[in-house]
Amino acid sequence: MTPTQTIPSPPEVVGRDLEPMFCPRSIAVLGASRREGSVGHAVLRNLIYGGYTGVIYAVNPKAKSILGLRCTPSLSAIDDEVDLAVVVTPPETIEGIVQEGADLGIRHFLIISAGFKEIGGEGAERELRIRQLARDRGLSIVGPNCLGLINTAVDVQMNATFATHMPRRGPLGLISQSGALCTALLDYAKGRGIGFSRFVSFGNKVDVTEIDLLRTLARDPNTKVILMYIEDLSAGQEFIEACNQIAQGDKPKPILVIKTGRTTEGAAAAASHTGSLAGSDEVYEAIFKQARVIRVESVGELFDCAEAFIDPLLPAGRKTAIVTNAGGPGIMATDACIRHGLTIPRFQDYTLKSLRFQMPPTSSIKNPVDVIGDAKHDRYRAALDAVTADENVDQVVVIVTPQMMTDEEEIAQVIAEIKGYSSKPIIGVLMGLVDVQPAVAVLQKHGVPTFIFPENAMRALSAKARYAEWQRRPISAYRQFEVQREAVAQLFDRELAAGRTQLVELAALEVLQHYGMATVPFALARSADEAAAAANQMGYPVVLKISGPKILHKTDVGGVRLNLITETEVRDAYDGMITQVHQHLGQEVEIWGVLVQKMLAKGKEIILGMTRDPKFGPLLMFGLGGIYTEALRDVAFRLAPIRENSARQMIRDIRSVKLLEGVRGEPPSDMEAVAEYLLRLSQLATDHPRMAELDINPLIVYGRGHGAIAADARVILKQS
Amino acid sequence: MTPTQTIPSPPEVVGRDLEPMFCPRSIAVLGASRREGSVGHAVLRNLIYGGYTGVIYAVNPKAKSILGLRCTPSLSAIDDEVDLAVVVTPPETIEGIVQEGADLGIRHFLIISAGFKEIGGEGAERELRIRQLARDRGLSIVGPNCLGLINTAVDVQMNATFATHMPRRGPLGLISQSGALCTALLDYAKGRGIGFSRFVSFGNKVDVTEIDLLRTLARDPNTKVILMYIEDLSAGQEFIEACNQIAQGDKPKPILVIKTGRTTEGAAAAASHTGSLAGSDEVYEAIFKQARVIRVESVGELFDCAEAFIDPLLPAGRKTAIVTNAGGPGIMATDACIRHGLTIPRFQDYTLKSLRFQMPPTSSIKNPVDVIGDAKHDRYRAALDAVTADENVDQVVVIVTPQMMTDEEEIAQVIAEIKGYSSKPIIGVLMGLVDVQPAVAVLQKHGVPTFIFPENAMRALSAKARYAEWQRRPISAYRQFEVQREAVAQLFDRELAAGRTQLVELAALEVLQHYGMATVPFALARSADEAAAAANQMGYPVVLKISGPKILHKTDVGGVRLNLITETEVRDAYDGMITQVHQHLGQEVEIWGVLVQKMLAKGKEIILGMTRDPKFGPLLMFGLGGIYTEALRDVAFRLAPIRENSARQMIRDIRSVKLLEGVRGEPPSDMEAVAEYLLRLSQLATDHPRMAELDINPLIVYGRGHGAIAADARVILKQS
Repeated sequence: MTPTQTIPSPPEVVGRDLEPMFCPRSIAVLGASRREGSVGHAVLRNLIYGGYTGVIYAVNPKAKSILGLRCTPSLSAIDDEVDLAVVVTPPETIEGIVQEGADLGIRHFLIISAGFKEIGGEGAERELRIRQLARDRGLSIVGPNCLGLINTAVDVQMNATFATHMPRRGPLGLISQSGALCTALLDYAKGRGIGFSRFVSFGNKVDVTEIDLLRTLARDPNTKVILMYIEDLSAGQEFIEACNQIAQGDKPKPILVIKTGRTTEGAAAAASHTGSLAGSDEVYEAIFKQARVIRVESVGELFDCAEAFIDPLLPAGRKTAIVTNAGGPGIMATDACIRHGLTIPRFQDYTLKSLRFQMPPTSSIKNPVDVIGDAKHDRYRAALDAVTADENVDQVVVIVTPQMMTDEEEIAQVIAEIKGYSSKPIIGVLMGLVDVQPAVAVLQKHGVPTFIFPENAMRALSAKARYAEWQRRPISAYRQFEVQREAVAQLFDRELAAGRTQLVELAALEVLQHYGMATVPFALARSADEAAAAANQMGYPVVLKISGPKILHKTDVGGVRLNLITETEVRDAYDGMITQVHQHLGQEVEIWGVLVQKMLAKGKEIILGMTRDPKFGPLLMFGLGGIYTEALRDVAFRLAPIRENSARQMIRDIRSVKLLEGVRGEPPSDMEAVAEYLLRLSQLATDHPRMAELDINPLIVYGRGHGAIAADARVILKQS
Repeated sequence: MTPTQTIPSPPEVVGRDLEPMFCPRSIAVLGASRREGSVGHAVLRNLIYGGYTGVIYAVNPKAKSILGLRCTPSLSAIDDEVDLAVVVTPPETIEGIVQEGADLGIRHFLIISAGFKEIGGEGAERELRIRQLARDRGLSIVGPNCLGLINTAVDVQMNATFATHMPRRGPLGLISQSGALCTALLDYAKGRGIGFSRFVSFGNKVDVTEIDLLRTLARDPNTKVILMYIEDLSAGQEFIEACNQIAQGDKPKPILVIKTGRTTEGAAAAASHTGSLAGSDEVYEAIFKQARVIRVESVGELFDCAEAFIDPLLPAGRKTAIVTNAGGPGIMATDACIRHGLTIPRFQDYTLKSLRFQMPPTSSIKNPVDVIGDAKHDRYRAALDAVTADENVDQVVVIVTPQMMTDEEEIAQVIAEIKGYSSKPIIGVLMGLVDVQPAVAVLQKHGVPTFIFPENAMRALSAKARYAEWQRRPISAYRQFEVQREAVAQLFDRELAAGRTQLVELAALEVLQHYGMATVPFALARSADEAAAAANQMGYPVVLKISGPKILHKTDVGGVRLNLITETEVRDAYDGMITQVHQHLGQEVEIWGVLVQKMLAKGKEIILGMTRDPKFGPLLMFGLGGIYTEALRDVAFRLAPIRENSARQMIRDIRSVKLLEGVRGEPPSDMEAVAEYLLRLSQLATDHPRMAELDINPLIVYGRGHGAIAADARVILKQS
């Protein structure tokens, strides 16, 4: 590795200031309505009954008052600054309202009404005009076609939605692309006692995007955990940057994401061509990995993970102690622990001694500790104190099943107390729904994450452990290598000028060389003499391949000779090849010459690739050669540019990485070299937007410290 | 395939009659106590307050009455037949009680008390004596160390447990090895409104096993779905047989199983040796597949699946229609559908027409159907009627999110109505916990499976679809091939008599031949002439390998010559080899001769193996050769004997089966031949318990119709 320069991450981009949207001193509701059951009524009611601390202006030219509030006939009639305009009028009126509002100096709009992009035609055109208006006038617009937004902060208390529930105050900030899902989430959260700081449904994102909202929630002191439901991302690298900045800031926050639409486009992707393996979900998977966000599969998992993160204390590692009053659930917890990548440590001798002394003889004192069915809070206390103090333990899961003797509420008190002074996360699993309810309330009150089943607890703790590891392992830099950027640009100019978008092998390998990648020694010979000289220089054995702008299937026309070991063989092969190719393709076929290549020593075959996602840009691919990539689809993707960590992690992502780590006594492969090639490829892809596709297939990788060599490559340029 | 005989499954084994245990006309409670908070008090209270319809005798020599019930001083003082004795006395008294009860003619005992095997020492010995007593006197004993049993049947209403909750009456039968888990399950079930038919915690299973209980629940008309929590199985093949009989009987019932302890022993297994890949959980996984039971990972998943099975109607296939009033949850449901192996069909034209006519223009009429947020029950009815009638649809999932206009209860009524006349399963997903509660109650009342999240619904429906497929695909027979069983027995006699437990290649291949498996042509030559003759007969190229009882590392001593293509080469190789082996190992080394083997044409390399699980018997293994089995652990297991379906399914179990189906234009491999080899291997393993291990590595498989040939084999016999 010889990087010449390490450029730091770009400085923090503050992003748009959307605070007036969430903390307005005054709100105008356009379309406020007297009619119960209408959205215009519900929004106004929620603002009033939700306890909003600012001034509300109900704009309605026809009504005198609504819900006791004196109406204002129009925006212009308001003799006050309006921080936020909430718009629930019919869609065709909205362009005019935004225009008028902007003229009056209003900068923030929340458009709840539907009837835009989602209905197509005139609706879509309307939406484009409003977008233009926002850009021209410097406005911030959330929506249209959304549920609205909520801020539970004591000094704001704004419920600008038409949902039936105002959520409890709590540490979760939620950003959702689906409004309908939000009503379900609010109902579910109410039943489960989950509280929110800010809650925003952003709908069609005519202007404000999920990334703007993410940055806003990251700055909100009341938001400790960010939950996102998205159906698409507005930008890939921008999302990665925003998340990385949040992770690197002085108040990092975990980001939990549900991204739907996993299966639709992925199925359409053709599986035969390595480049086309990147179905759209694979791009999202790559983005989420680079962004270091926690992707979850379902709403249940989203709230389970959120529950774990409610306690800001992070575990120092994955070593998990389990204390239970029932054997079966202890085994289930152990299984779930291992399944989700956590570990079950052995206790230190002093812990075992302490437990042996304090527990009844029939209890199990190894991890998991079974305090057995008749345990009351005192025995739980003894066990918890002992295992929490053990230096082999990073976190503790306490399982309580409601047995005849169990004093669940007192046990919950003990857990809360110990959590109060322990430096390690403690998590409660209270199995049941009825008898355990008072105990659950105690734990919730004290901020102890609480679950019904060990399986859910362990899955969530695994996500938290991963997050903790990210926090300990700083985000690495982007590396810049010293390369021949201009030479590649000229090469592309030359090829495009000659009308070629698919580069021949010779040119493709030259591109790699310009970016510091080792390629198989090759030379273009125009005579048998030149071929012999080149072979003598690079050493035997060599391969000869015919080279010409139109000769694609070289083997079929006698254009490939392998394993030549003497100068005579090379000369004979050269002459024979030229004759044979002419026989096949006629005398007029253009032949540039014969490519003389050194035959490489055996190593592991790897494929590196680059394609361009139409939305997110250059996508890098890594996989093992042969059936691993094509048949088993065991490949990893990242969006370029990639950071150093990403390059290394990308290699570890594939299941068959075991083959690079060395199996059956083979030495491990030079994965550092592969990582460097990925970084160089990333730079190449970023530097040259004209390059549409690139495949290095195969890259031959040797044992650790012995590097890698590109044996063949293919580059496709964009038709400009 | 040339089977000569197909033997039918064994006739149904009725199993033990445990009905008097679940439907006793009279119960004696030994250890009934006045002391509140004691187990003896709780059991009696539960029997009385639970509404037990028979006679209860409270046996207590010291108390006059408990809970209004006049006590009996001893068992012998009861002037009535006692169908069931429930024992909650101290452990050391119990042997005497069982003895006395048996003398008095009592046949069924439920021992709730702990203090047996689980504490070791004297407790374990006590348990063994009670087991012996049960066998000697023909008793049936459930327990000890358990929660007890419950039968909610109207004419019984027996709660013989010390749990605080009597469950609702319902269609679920539960068998649990953990008593403590049961209390948690009862509490959870109460909160979720889940009902049980029978509920039994079997503890240490001194006598009655989970298989006895399984058969009992299978016969119970009130039990529609069987749920099992187990930590081990008493017997493998017996469990498979019992489950297969239940599946083939006239009233098949789904069996859902949680088996814990997935990870403990599996981790200990050495990964390098193919045979040792069978960690104990892999055996269980094999058993559950052969038994066609649905294995779940968690209690949450258990009850989710049970919810789906509450409706006995099975889907005709995996084609799932989704109707939703919110786009986001519709996408989530689609993702979950595909992820769990269900499919999203396209609707027929008439369905699309009908929907286009009845739905508002902005709704999406393709699958998933989005009836949009303002849909009330009438629009849901129209959509449901249309998609339910579509012949491309096997089942329908209805998602309801609580929006402002949503009349959830009326929608639930519509769903229940349509479910009443539809021949296709309909499932409700009511997202939320509070507003949707009345609607949930309506669906529950009408037996419509109901979930909170689409993810959970789809996972459960996937299990049900699998079960429905099993029902449509009858369990196949065991095949018996005509084989040289006696010849193999004699071969084993001969080898063991000579003190050899590891068979040399020659003998191992002979064993395969006796069981009708093709092996690489081979001959043992004792001179260069014999070697040349053998080679001429089998055709070139050939391989020579030294053969002798003590020569293990043949290559190291010059004992292997590959790719010999002429008679001269064979003769030279023979002589050279003998000389070289003597040089390496001395003149006195015993040489049987030289093995002449035909070199096989290239094909796919497969490994078939057999080991003996110490508890469950012969275990068959299948995997691809090379790194697939060793590094990627991509292998499948089954317990022998296996049925025809199992052999085929076993091949499809591995991820890398794609390589056998033909990738990159290769023809598909002869998987029928591999299946037949597995069946023959199964017969071999079953016929010869002296065979401890067998590996065929590799078995070379050719294209479809071209068979397979064992190229090398290894057999290890038990030291007898």
